[in-house]
Amino acid sequence: MDPLRHVKPAVRAIGAYTLAEREARVKIDQNENPHDVPEALKRRVLERALARPWSRYPPFDPKELLEALARASGWRADGILAGNGSNEMIAALLVVTVAEGTPVVIPEPTFTLYALLTSVLGGRPVRVPLRREADGGFVYDADALLEARRQSQAPLTIVCSPNNPTGTSLPLAEVERLCSDADGLVVVDEAYHEFAGVSVVPLLARHPNLVVLRTFSKAMALAGLRVGYLLASPEMVREVNKARLPYNVNVLSQMAAVEALEEPQWLADGVRFLVGEREHLLGILANVPGVRALPSDANFFLLELASANPKAVFDALLRRGVLVRDVTSYPQLSRCLRVSVGNKQENHLFMHALGAALTEAGELAARERA
Amino acid sequence: MDPLRHVKPAVRAIGAYTLAEREARVKIDQNENPHDVPEALKRRVLERALARPWSRYPPFDPKELLEALARASGWRADGILAGNGSNEMIAALLVVTVAEGTPVVIPEPTFTLYALLTSVLGGRPVRVPLRREADGGFVYDADALLEARRQSQAPLTIVCSPNNPTGTSLPLAEVERLCSDADGLVVVDEAYHEFAGVSVVPLLARHPNLVVLRTFSKAMALAGLRVGYLLASPEMVREVNKARLPYNVNVLSQMAAVEALEEPQWLADGVRFLVGEREHLLGILANVPGVRALPSDANFFLLELASANPKAVFDALLRRGVLVRDVTSYPQLSRCLRVSVGNKQENHLFMHALGAALTEAGELAARERA
Repeated sequence: MDPLRHVKPAVRAIGAYTLAEREARVKIDQNENPHDVPEALKRRVLERALARPWSRYPPFDPKELLEALARASGWRADGILAGNGSNEMIAALLVVTVAEGTPVVIPEPTFTLYALLTSVLGGRPVRVPLRREADGGFVYDADALLEARRQSQAPLTIVCSPNNPTGTSLPLAEVERLCSDADGLVVVDEAYHEFAGVSVVPLLARHPNLVVLRTFSKAMALAGLRVGYLLASPEMVREVNKARLPYNVNVLSQMAAVEALEEPQWLADGVRFLVGEREHLLGILANVPGVRALPSDANFFLLELASANPKAVFDALLRRGVLVRDVTSYPQLSRCLRVSVGNKQENHLFMHALGAALTEAGELAARERA
Repeated sequence: MDPLRHVKPAVRAIGAYTLAEREARVKIDQNENPHDVPEALKRRVLERALARPWSRYPPFDPKELLEALARASGWRADGILAGNGSNEMIAALLVVTVAEGTPVVIPEPTFTLYALLTSVLGGRPVRVPLRREADGGFVYDADALLEARRQSQAPLTIVCSPNNPTGTSLPLAEVERLCSDADGLVVVDEAYHEFAGVSVVPLLARHPNLVVLRTFSKAMALAGLRVGYLLASPEMVREVNKARLPYNVNVLSQMAAVEALEEPQWLADGVRFLVGEREHLLGILANVPGVRALPSDANFFLLELASANPKAVFDALLRRGVLVRDVTSYPQLSRCLRVSVGNKQENHLFMHALGAALTEAGELAARERA
């Protein structure tokens, strides 16, 4: 008999979260910060790392990190949980709330991990499409989210704001409406909040059903070190903590996160640069025929191709050393590529490659029609 | 209404895995390697860390690490999954197999995380007591494990070998019998296998229902960096991988693990030292009245107190700067403390403190009786 029959049917049925490994000179496919943390910061961390025995476990509670996060976020330390990336905090939150058949309201298109983990746990994603505006930009439909929650009785509504991959924000007033309308948990993933310049963290004090997720992988430029955190009421944190694995954040990453929080000016400068570059790119792209660049509150944007085949453009960009994200399999995005804002040179190379790629893909399309 | 009502009842009902944070000069409570990795190794890792942008995600598949693990373990790279500590691999394995009410055969006493995570996921731990021999040592009862699996129809049997906290091994022939008797998954946690000098990994080739867990936290002296791995058939790995979070092992820990695998002589010397010290301590303790040190195949052993109150001895040791693990709440271990083997000086200080602690606890007991 087959040992795989002991794997849950819900798991057998789904595919894994995958990403083809591709090399490229200009890597603007993962919404990473194109600028590394300052070398002085790295040296401070490495000095501390050398002095600390690696053979010893991290502290059971990462107190130094939690207190630094409390100072930086303005929320209480006993209402914060640190994780091995915010992915781990999403997983822990779902593990303590999702049982067989539990409905979870999830907008679409959005970060695919929410629905994937919900399904692995036997839960049922209840999808609510984002709406499109006249200018092509996406908006959240808060009424539809409320209605979906009401109909499904979902204990959990997950909103990524600004949203990956559309760059859409859910306005604070709408988050508040979601929180007030019922006691269902409202999870706001703020992975990109620095670029929007707004946060729902101040709402935590009066909404015990609000849960906020944040990461060091984007604006904070520590994607390689895997640090994320969850903010919620101390009572909720205590429950989610039961699914958190002991010693989940390694000592070097804890040190790096603490040191990174000591560099608010570096962070602010980096964010200002990336937002400026994003607007600069969107301005130029507004005049490029055949594409529409969608407005975004994050460090990336969607590029919608009017006529050329988006996969042909993706390939043509890659041949020129530019790797963007193919999001054509996402609902409503069959004509879209996602582009992260890079450094000056990367953005220049991207724009240059895009012109050539559009011409090439256009010619290809013409040949195929002929 | 209370937002906590959205947390699953099974989660609300349990306590978190906790460990009181205590400072001590001699820390022999977590089965850590008392010797840090060589400083030259740390410097090699830190040099690589400095050259690598921290702002970039780890590779989607940690190829370099998986290939190094394949070479070191003798098992195929596509049958290995790396995790943020073996804890994460245990969790991923349980997530893909345990649904509401799923029975999981778990011996007791053993590492508490197996039953805790099973319960969080809504599963039902089916406990099988270890047996005690005439010399006081524990043994696994393979017949009872088989019978429990048969009766409960559990898809999963988890055995820690050598076992934490008893130091008990399940002989290879018994593991093979468990694997052959049915197609239920047999999970062997080999966190301490280096100290036993034996591994079930060679059985993987002919038992597709065998899953092996290993860690860098014990003999490999990287507890602070959180690296563990799972070995199984490529088909099983593909399924467990669906619950593994993307980018789960950070780049610095990957580098450290790869470098540590390049030091087999350092590892062998360290293991030989710790096993020698363990036997040395057990030899001395055999002649200490009032205590019984139980035989062990790992880098720790149980200390059973004949008359003195174990909590009083724990406290008396701590007052002398020696922190051991209080395991009196484990089934069958109400008179036991768990002692990790330390370095020469730590072991000396432990033995010294133990003499004084036993005297003090004995006097205390006498006073209480009077």
